[in-house]
Amino acid sequence: MLVIMRTDASEEEIQGVLSRLKEADLEGHLSAGEERTVIGAVGRVVDPDMRTAVGTMPGVDQVVPISRPYKLSGREFKPDDTVIDVGGVRIGDGNVVVMAGPCSIEDEDHMVSTAKAVKAAGAHIIRGGAFKPRSSPYSFRGLGEEGLKHLATAREETGLPVITEVMSIADVETVARYSDILQIGARNMQNFNLLDEVGLVRKPAMLKRGLSGTIEEWLLAAEYIMAKGNHEVILCERGIRTFETATRNTLDLAAVALVKRMSHLPVISDPSHGTGRWQLVEPMSKASVAVGADGLMIEVHPSPDHALSDGAQSLTFENFEKLMRTLETVGAAVGRPLAPRPGELAAV
Amino acid sequence: MLVIMRTDASEEEIQGVLSRLKEADLEGHLSAGEERTVIGAVGRVVDPDMRTAVGTMPGVDQVVPISRPYKLSGREFKPDDTVIDVGGVRIGDGNVVVMAGPCSIEDEDHMVSTAKAVKAAGAHIIRGGAFKPRSSPYSFRGLGEEGLKHLATAREETGLPVITEVMSIADVETVARYSDILQIGARNMQNFNLLDEVGLVRKPAMLKRGLSGTIEEWLLAAEYIMAKGNHEVILCERGIRTFETATRNTLDLAAVALVKRMSHLPVISDPSHGTGRWQLVEPMSKASVAVGADGLMIEVHPSPDHALSDGAQSLTFENFEKLMRTLETVGAAVGRPLAPRPGELAAV
Amino acid sequence: MLVIMRTDASEEEIQGVLSRLKEADLEGHLSAGEERTVIGAVGRVVDPDMRTAVGTMPGVDQVVPISRPYKLSGREFKPDDTVIDVGGVRIGDGNVVVMAGPCSIEDEDHMVSTAKAVKAAGAHIIRGGAFKPRSSPYSFRGLGEEGLKHLATAREETGLPVITEVMSIADVETVARYSDILQIGARNMQNFNLLDEVGLVRKPAMLKRGLSGTIEEWLLAAEYIMAKGNHEVILCERGIRTFETATRNTLDLAAVALVKRMSHLPVISDPSHGTGRWQLVEPMSKASVAVGADGLMIEVHPSPDHALSDGAQSLTFENFEKLMRTLETVGAAVGRPLAPRPGELAAV
Amino acid sequence: MLVIMRTDASEEEIQGVLSRLKEADLEGHLSAGEERTVIGAVGRVVDPDMRTAVGTMPGVDQVVPISRPYKLSGREFKPDDTVIDVGGVRIGDGNVVVMAGPCSIEDEDHMVSTAKAVKAAGAHIIRGGAFKPRSSPYSFRGLGEEGLKHLATAREETGLPVITEVMSIADVETVARYSDILQIGARNMQNFNLLDEVGLVRKPAMLKRGLSGTIEEWLLAAEYIMAKGNHEVILCERGIRTFETATRNTLDLAAVALVKRMSHLPVISDPSHGTGRWQLVEPMSKASVAVGADGLMIEVHPSPDHALSDGAQSLTFENFEKLMRTLETVGAAVGRPLAPRPGELAAV
Repeated sequence: MLVIMRTDASEEEIQGVLSRLKEADLEGHLSAGEERTVIGAVGRVVDPDMRTAVGTMPGVDQVVPISRPYKLSGREFKPDDTVIDVGGVRIGDGNVVVMAGPCSIEDEDHMVSTAKAVKAAGAHIIRGGAFKPRSSPYSFRGLGEEGLKHLATAREETGLPVITEVMSIADVETVARYSDILQIGARNMQNFNLLDEVGLVRKPAMLKRGLSGTIEEWLLAAEYIMAKGNHEVILCERGIRTFETATRNTLDLAAVALVKRMSHLPVISDPSHGTGRWQLVEPMSKASVAVGADGLMIEVHPSPDHALSDGAQSLTFENFEKLMRTLETVGAAVGRPLAPRPGELAAV
Repeated sequence: MLVIMRTDASEEEIQGVLSRLKEADLEGHLSAGEERTVIGAVGRVVDPDMRTAVGTMPGVDQVVPISRPYKLSGREFKPDDTVIDVGGVRIGDGNVVVMAGPCSIEDEDHMVSTAKAVKAAGAHIIRGGAFKPRSSPYSFRGLGEEGLKHLATAREETGLPVITEVMSIADVETVARYSDILQIGARNMQNFNLLDEVGLVRKPAMLKRGLSGTIEEWLLAAEYIMAKGNHEVILCERGIRTFETATRNTLDLAAVALVKRMSHLPVISDPSHGTGRWQLVEPMSKASVAVGADGLMIEVHPSPDHALSDGAQSLTFENFEKLMRTLETVGAAVGRPLAPRPGELAAV
Repeated sequence: MLVIMRTDASEEEIQGVLSRLKEADLEGHLSAGEERTVIGAVGRVVDPDMRTAVGTMPGVDQVVPISRPYKLSGREFKPDDTVIDVGGVRIGDGNVVVMAGPCSIEDEDHMVSTAKAVKAAGAHIIRGGAFKPRSSPYSFRGLGEEGLKHLATAREETGLPVITEVMSIADVETVARYSDILQIGARNMQNFNLLDEVGLVRKPAMLKRGLSGTIEEWLLAAEYIMAKGNHEVILCERGIRTFETATRNTLDLAAVALVKRMSHLPVISDPSHGTGRWQLVEPMSKASVAVGADGLMIEVHPSPDHALSDGAQSLTFENFEKLMRTLETVGAAVGRPLAPRPGELAAV
Repeated sequence: MLVIMRTDASEEEIQGVLSRLKEADLEGHLSAGEERTVIGAVGRVVDPDMRTAVGTMPGVDQVVPISRPYKLSGREFKPDDTVIDVGGVRIGDGNVVVMAGPCSIEDEDHMVSTAKAVKAAGAHIIRGGAFKPRSSPYSFRGLGEEGLKHLATAREETGLPVITEVMSIADVETVARYSDILQIGARNMQNFNLLDEVGLVRKPAMLKRGLSGTIEEWLLAAEYIMAKGNHEVILCERGIRTFETATRNTLDLAAVALVKRMSHLPVISDPSHGTGRWQLVEPMSKASVAVGADGLMIEVHPSPDHALSDGAQSLTFENFEKLMRTLETVGAAVGRPLAPRPGELAAV
C-alpha cells in the first residue's frame, strides 16, 4: 500500500506512520515530493484493516492499495479459463450453456413438463427453485425438499443436470444430494457462513452478484468459496439495483466482459432477473452472448400468468424455443456457439 | 389492486383479466374511462405474485397495489409506539439510547476497558462484534464464542446490557445465551432463514437496513421476524449504497423520520457505518437525534489506529465522551433526552 | 389519474377531493371497495402538478397516474419507426450506423487524419468535440469554432456527415452551420432552454441520456425538442451513474431495447463513455448491436496516450478497424447489418 | 500522481511511462517494490487528462491522483470560512439563515402575501421561482420576467433580500437585475457555460448539488464560478438520486458536514426538494441545523393543494411558523442560532 501524507504533515507524523508500519512488520519507503511525502509499505501482503487503521493516523491524507484483495479467483493466480464439467456439460470453454426452467417448482407435473419442453428447445441444464427467497413472508416460499425431489425426477426424465438455490447452511447437504450445481442467490452473496459451507462441498457452485455488490466484492465472495477448497465457482450477473425502475434491475453486461478479464471463472448472465420483463429477455440474451457470457439462465413457465413467482419475467415454451433458435445464430456469429449436450457429445 | 388496461385493450382481453381474478376468488369491478378501462380487484388480501402474474396478461398496461404489503410492522396494525425494555433500558419511549463499543472484540481487556469507558461517558448498552461479516475471507472474522464470553464479562463488570451480531442460524442459540439483543447485519437483512430463526427467539432483535434495501423491503424483513412471534424488533438505519464514494455509505436520515411514521417500531441510527469516517460521527449523531432517532450505535476504540476492523470510523474514548455531552444538549432541545440507565432508574 | 384514499379517510375528505377535481374540470368517479375508496379522475389530460397537489390533501394515500406523460415521442402517437436521413445515411431503418472520431478535436491534421481512418474502416458519420463539457475548469475545453472548422474540413475530405456537441444556446446557430447533427450531452439532458432552442433548428438532434436520467425523463427531454417542431431526434444511451466504479458508467443496454418498444425514435449506444475503458468497447459494441441499437458512437484516437481528453476509452485506428469487421458479422447474424454509406448507395 | 505498474510490466514499459512523463515536463521517480514498480510524477500540477492518457499505456495498472482537483473552493487555499453578506444577512458566519417562499411565483398577490407570511415567521431571505425547470414541457414553466417583478415587489414590501433561479445564460443579466442571489439548479450543476457566466456577475450565487453529482464534482462546479472571479458561492445540498423511491431524493446530510470540512464556502440544506414530502421537512430541517448547515431553503405555499408546482413538499404558513420556533431551540442547542435579520441588526 501507499500512504499519501497531507501537504502539512509534520516530521513527527511521518515518523508515526513509519513506526506503525514497523509494528506490523512492514518496511516503509519514504519518497518526499515537492508537495508532499508518500510512504510505500513493503512486506507481506497488507491486510485491508491495516490500511484502514493507518488511514486514521494524524497527517495521513489517504491510503492507496496497490494489490488486488482477491487471489484464487484472479487471472494473476490462474491465467487460463476455468472449465467446469457438470454431468458432461462443459461451462467456460468458449461455448454457450443455457440453464432454463421455472422460477419456482410448483408440482411434479409442472417441473417435469417444463424440463422436457426446455430440453426439446435445446437447453443444457434444468433450473427450478425449491427454496425461494421472497421479500414478503406471506409470498410462496417454495416446496422445500419435496421440490428437490421433483427436480431430481426432471433430471431422470431428461438426462440433463440440474441447478437449484440453497439459502441456508442447514440445507446445504440436502441440496447437494439432489442438485448438480448449488446456486447462491443475490441476497446471499455476502452470507459469508453460507459461502464457507458451500466451499466445503465438492460440487460446482453458482454465485449470483448481489443487488449492490461491486465487482470486487463479488470476486471476494467467490474467494470465500475457493479458500475453503471448492474451486468450481460459476459467477452469475443478474442485474444491480440502480435508480431506474422501468426495469426490475439494471443488467450490467460490461461487468460480464470485465470480470472475464479479471478472473478465470466462467460468467453466466441472467436476463430474466436482470430485466424483470419477459419482452426484454430475448434482446438481452442475445446481447449477453455477444458480450462474451459463458451461458444464460432463463426462466420458463408453461403459463406465466399463473406462475407462483416471477411470472412477469418468464418465457412461454414457444418464446423460449424461438429464443434458442436466435441464440444459435448469434452464438455462431461471435464464435461462441451453443454448447453440445451430454447426449450429443459422442456424435461430435 | 387496480388493473389498468392499455388504451387499445380488446373486450376479450378485459374479460380475460376478469376470469383470471375470478379463479383467484377476487371480484373485478370494471370502471370504463374515456381513454381506458380500470379494473379494481376486491377480495381477500392480494398476493404480490398474483399482481405480477396478472401484469403479464395481454391488454394489461400496469397493475397498481393499493394496500401495504407489511402488516405487523405497520402503524395501521398498531398505532402506538413499541417500547422495548432491555435489562431496564427502554428503547422507543421518546428518549435516546446510546449503544457503544468496539467494532470487533479483540480480547477480554480490550472489551472490558472499552465497556467501562463508554459506560463512564454515559452509554446505555455495550456493543462488540464476535462474529464479523467481512468482504474478504482473509480479514479478521472475529473471536466467535470466545468473544461472546468477553462480552458477557463486560456486562457483569458494567451492569449494562449488551448487543452483538448473529450471522448464522447455527449460532442463534449461542448468541442468544450471551447477548441481550441479537443484531442482524445489513448484509443479512434478506437472509430470510436467519430472520425466521431470530423470530423464534424471545429476545429483542435489531435489524439493520441492507445496503440496497428499500424502506418497504426493510419493513418486510422485520415482518419475517414478527410473523414468527418475536415482536421486539428494533430497526437500525446504517447507510445505503449510492454513487457517492466520499463517505462509506449514505446515511439516509429521512428514512428514519419516514419509518417512524410508517411503523411503530423503534429506529436507531448508526453514523459510524453510515459515514465510515470518525470526523462525521459527531455531526451525524446530532442530526440523528434531531431527526427523531430512538437511539444511536457508535463504534469506540481505545486506539483506532490499531483496531482490527473499522478503525477509520471509531471514536477514541475522549471523543466519545465529548459526543455524549453534546448529545445531552441536543436531545434536551428536541425533547428527546438521553434515556436514564438501569442503575439510575431508582434515582429518577 | 386514480386517487387512492386512506383506509380511514372520512366522508368529508372524500368530498374534498371530489370538489378539488371539479375545480380543475375533472370528473371524479367514486369506487368504494371493502377497505378503501378509489376515485378515478376523468377529463382532459391531467397535469402532473395537479396530481402532486391532490396528493397533499387530507385522507389521500396515493395518486396513481394512468397515462404516459410524453406524447410525441411515444409509440402510441406514432407506431412506426422514425427514420432520419443525414446526408444520405439513414438512421433507424434497421441497419447499424457507426459514428466515430476523436473525443476532442485537437487540430486540423488530427481531425482529418482520424476522419479518414474511420472512414476507411467503414464508419458512416464523423464525430469530434469542439465544445467540451469538463468536470474541471482547468481541463482542456475544446477549440470552439476553430474546431468546428476542422470538422467541416473533415467532412469535405471524407464526404461523410458530421456530428458535434452543442453546449449552449448561444452556440446553437454556429454549431448548426457546421454540423449535420447537433449533439446534446448527458449533462445537458435537462437543460430545458437548450432543448427548446434545438427544437427550433431544422437539423437532427442526438440527445444523450443523463447520468441520472430515468427512461421517462429521457423521453420527456426528447418531447421538449419535438414540441418545438423538431421531430428528428436520435436518442443515445451512454451509461448511467451507479455505485459500481470499476467502469466509468453502467451502460444500460436493456434501456435500449425498452426504449425501442416505448418510442419510435432511433436509439444509439455509446460504449466509449458507457464503460470508460477501451478494452470493453468491442464487447459492448457487439452487445449493443445484438440488443437492437440503431447505431454506435465510438471514440477513436491516433494515439490514445496523447489524447487531450478521454484517452482511456479511445480505440486506436487498428482496433477500430478490427471492431468494424466484427460488427459486420454480428450485425448480419441479428438481421441488423451495417448501413450502406452515402457513396455506396448507388452501388446497392 | 502515482503510476502503479502491473506486476508483469517490462523494463521497456516502465521506460515508456518515464518518457511520456518527460514529454509533459514531469519528472518520474522510480520506486521498485518487491511486487511491482511505482512511479511518482513530480512537477507542475498534473492535468487529469494526462492521468487518463498515461493510464492507457501498456504495463500500467492504475494511476492515482495525489492532489485535489479543486483549488479556490478548498480549505487548503483558504482555511477560514467564507461569509457572504446579502443585503445585511450574513451567510456562513455560524448562524442559521432561512430562505423561504413558494416553489413557483404564481401572481403578485400570491408572491407578496407568502413573502409577508414567511417574514412574519422569521425567514431571512425570500425565494420564488420565475424560471422553472420542469421534467415535462407540458408543465407550468414559470412566469419569467413578470415573476421577477413580483419578486422585486415582495422585496420592497418586506425589506428582505430575494433569491431566484437562473436557467439560461440569456437570462443571467435580467435575473441579476432583480435578484440578490442567483440560484443555479441541480439540473444545471454541470451546465458549464452557465457557471462561467454567473462567474462574471458580481452577485452571490447559490449552486445546488446535482442529482448525481459527487462532492468532488460539486466543488469543481463551484470552481468554475470562482475561476471567473465570483468568489461568493453558496453550496446547497438538495438530495441525490438513489434507488429509494419512498422519498423524492435522498438528502445527504453527511455531505453537508463533509463539505464544510473540505471547503470554506457556506453550505445550505434544502429539505423540501431533498425529501419531496412536507411531513419530512420539519425533522430534516432540525437535522440539517444539527449537522452544521449554514442555512435552509424551505418551500412555503398558502394552499399546497393548489400549488402550480411542488405542492407535496410545501409547508403551509402555519407549519412554517411552527418550524421556525423549533429551529430556534435546536439552533441554540448546537450553537448555531437563527441569524439576526437586516432590520434587527441595530438592535443586537
